[in-house]
Amino acid sequence: MSNIANTPLPPYYAVIFTSIKEPNDTGYFDMALRMLELANGQEGFLGMESARNDVGITVSYWSNLESIKKWKMNSEHLIAQEKGKSQWYKKYKTRICLVERDYEFNK
Amino acid sequence: MSNIANTPLPPYYAVIFTSIKEPNDTGYFDMALRMLELANGQEGFLGMESARNDVGITVSYWSNLESIKKWKMNSEHLIAQEKGKSQWYKKYKTRICLVERDYEFNK
Repeated sequence: MSNIANTPLPPYYAVIFTSIKEPNDTGYFDMALRMLELANGQEGFLGMESARNDVGITVSYWSNLESIKKWKMNSEHLIAQEKGKSQWYKKYKTRICLVERDYEFNK
Repeated sequence: MSNIANTPLPPYYAVIFTSIKEPNDTGYFDMALRMLELANGQEGFLGMESARNDVGITVSYWSNLESIKKWKMNSEHLIAQEKGKSQWYKKYKTRICLVERDYEFNK
């Protein structure tokens, strides 16, 4: 998650997940790593970017809405989502977006 | 930038700006603060979220494509973009996205 995702030409989808955690985040890091590993194996997964200070932002990229829906319903991911609500997150917002255009700069 | 942006009901636009900085980032922090202040005064600006570790992710939210175009062409922002390329950023990727759906959780 420490690089810029190498996504294909648009259109594709982005899921922007912005969150604020509870002070006690035991188990959070292991879960986040496992979710990245699990997402990587999903059909339509194109990449992920993540950073956290006061707010955490994780953006995952997907080929289409169907692949996002399948990921949301993945059984292990569902358990993580429940633990997220009961334990780790104070609040979060998820935004499903169609990436229409992109451009990049490389030195 | 230390909270989740309080955006209106979709549809609206998101600009996902993912970057990796050069080691020497003199002046970067002041510029980032000034750009937030400046964006705040722009027509169509809906909010901003930002976090940085190895990768920095800044997501700004906008009413429509026209307001994003005007922001990109803002004269002071143009100067910051140039300094970004010559000094601060090793690489970056900008993605223009239509937010189709969102949902949130609050404890």
